[in-house]
Amino acid sequence: MTVTPASLHRGRDATTPALRTALDLLDRRTRHQAAYHLGWITAAGAPTAADGGKAVRPALALLSAQAVGAPADTALPGAVAVELVHNFSLLHDDLMDGDEERRHRRTVWALWGASSAILTGDALLALAQEVLLDCGLPTAAAAAGLLARTTRRLIHGQVQDMAFEQRQHVTVEECLEMAAGKTGALLSASAAIGAVLAGAPRPVVDALALYGEQVGLAFQLTDDVLGIWGDPAATGKSVHSDLRARKKSLPVAHALNQGGTLGVELATWLAAPGRPDETELRRAADLIEAAGGRDWARAEAARRMALGEAALHGAGLDPGARDELLAVGRFIVHREV
Amino acid sequence: MTVTPASLHRGRDATTPALRTALDLLDRRTRHQAAYHLGWITAAGAPTAADGGKAVRPALALLSAQAVGAPADTALPGAVAVELVHNFSLLHDDLMDGDEERRHRRTVWALWGASSAILTGDALLALAQEVLLDCGLPTAAAAAGLLARTTRRLIHGQVQDMAFEQRQHVTVEECLEMAAGKTGALLSASAAIGAVLAGAPRPVVDALALYGEQVGLAFQLTDDVLGIWGDPAATGKSVHSDLRARKKSLPVAHALNQGGTLGVELATWLAAPGRPDETELRRAADLIEAAGGRDWARAEAARRMALGEAALHGAGLDPGARDELLAVGRFIVHREV
Repeated sequence: MTVTPASLHRGRDATTPALRTALDLLDRRTRHQAAYHLGWITAAGAPTAADGGKAVRPALALLSAQAVGAPADTALPGAVAVELVHNFSLLHDDLMDGDEERRHRRTVWALWGASSAILTGDALLALAQEVLLDCGLPTAAAAAGLLARTTRRLIHGQVQDMAFEQRQHVTVEECLEMAAGKTGALLSASAAIGAVLAGAPRPVVDALALYGEQVGLAFQLTDDVLGIWGDPAATGKSVHSDLRARKKSLPVAHALNQGGTLGVELATWLAAPGRPDETELRRAADLIEAAGGRDWARAEAARRMALGEAALHGAGLDPGARDELLAVGRFIVHREV
Repeated sequence: MTVTPASLHRGRDATTPALRTALDLLDRRTRHQAAYHLGWITAAGAPTAADGGKAVRPALALLSAQAVGAPADTALPGAVAVELVHNFSLLHDDLMDGDEERRHRRTVWALWGASSAILTGDALLALAQEVLLDCGLPTAAAAAGLLARTTRRLIHGQVQDMAFEQRQHVTVEECLEMAAGKTGALLSASAAIGAVLAGAPRPVVDALALYGEQVGLAFQLTDDVLGIWGDPAATGKSVHSDLRARKKSLPVAHALNQGGTLGVELATWLAAPGRPDETELRRAADLIEAAGGRDWARAEAARRMALGEAALHGAGLDPGARDELLAVGRFIVHREV
């Protein structure tokens, strides 16, 4: 069990009031559904004490301003914006993936229908830009441009993820590109946007962006390992959850691309119809492990993390904020183990 | 039949190459679906000579720069951005409304599924901001902020439109607010964004924005009249099309809110289940006309148009560009009569 870094609590406490102010711009119906999705109210509108997720992206945003010597407040519009974009993508992805639950609550589309999830997601994406562009900082346009490019990468990642379900084969490179889009892009922007808003020099911004991107990839690699071999007691997911859906996750892609008899057997298994039984699931997990998928994913996660951390150490950042960025990154990657 | 103003052809010719360059930023699958939606290619990817719509928003954007004495090119990123936002909303609205055809072609969701329409729409919205924010003009952030606020209003309009379907009664004010969001907001931004990019003074921008907004409302009022009493030969829509769906359009809202026996009969008819037959449709159209819905909508459209045109005349604009703005506005409102 990893202890939650204090900067996550601080980040959420600092961001929530600004997020509420931003949501006040929305029409009543959209605001209600967004507040429900964020875990602030029940479906009926009663306030809730529930935990609305870890808010790691706002924490990274605020720390990235402090890391370049600016007050955390400088990054506040960025912290709100990345959290809004994250929730835009959750609203739309839950609908597209047909997921009826998130954090033990019904998803917006499951409660109010597809149109609600589409419109509320759209509204949060537009609002993210509005919050940045109306913040009054001379650096707002640069931050908003970063966010727009990031959103494009995020969408591309989801497009790839959905396309992979229809394909027989994917390369490790394609799989990494997908993860870089779906998970790396927004964490990268989160770890850089505070520095952009603070007007930090390009190389410093780039180092922070690289750090966030590698944390995202390390998280995805680790999460994919847990999706096959994870301990349900520790992860809250059922063991073999990704395998049940015959998902081409990163360890699977690695194993597939080793070829040989193991690779062929795995490819045949992935292409088979229907839901696999427990014996099949164990056999598939063993195949992937035997083809080196588990070891590779773990080593690759460690390599990505080291790469990101090295970039952070070389960027001349404020040591206190840098160490907090490192702690948040490690928390993201190891939160479920 | 109104002659298409030359500025529409010029606007499209100037905008299309920039729009193509913008789309090149998208992943292959999303670009394909966007290009299809825009009418540039067939579903299979073959180039098409088809007309991809009138591109009135880009024309307004380019003219609004010229109206304040700047070259049309200054507004090009704005022209691309408003066209992208327009098409984002069409992609999502077609899905939410269940419309399988647009401009005599299958809609993206009907061809490739709901997820494609969601993701391609999302991508166009993000791209609109990216194009503006990366254009290099010092006014880019102001234009992007306008676009973000406009998108919020556009979404609010669609939220209201969908909510009205579930409601027994709507006021004329609510109906006008919905039309101002769904149709007025983006035409308003289109008619102002070139002036914003050119750095025009606030009162001039406001006059142009007011003009676009009133054109939008006049268009909607006129379109609603045609949706009840229109001549199919002139409009391409079947007569009574809005009535068939028992839609609470502006003339209907006016008639409803007159109360009296006509209003009560109309309310009862709107709340009735099932698809109305021809006799019922004629009776409903007569009811709305007798309650003054047709005359009111026509007079209100004329009033809105006069209000918008007066704002344009008082703004000290370049007379040539102003006259072209007036011609485009009249074309928008009267294109189907």
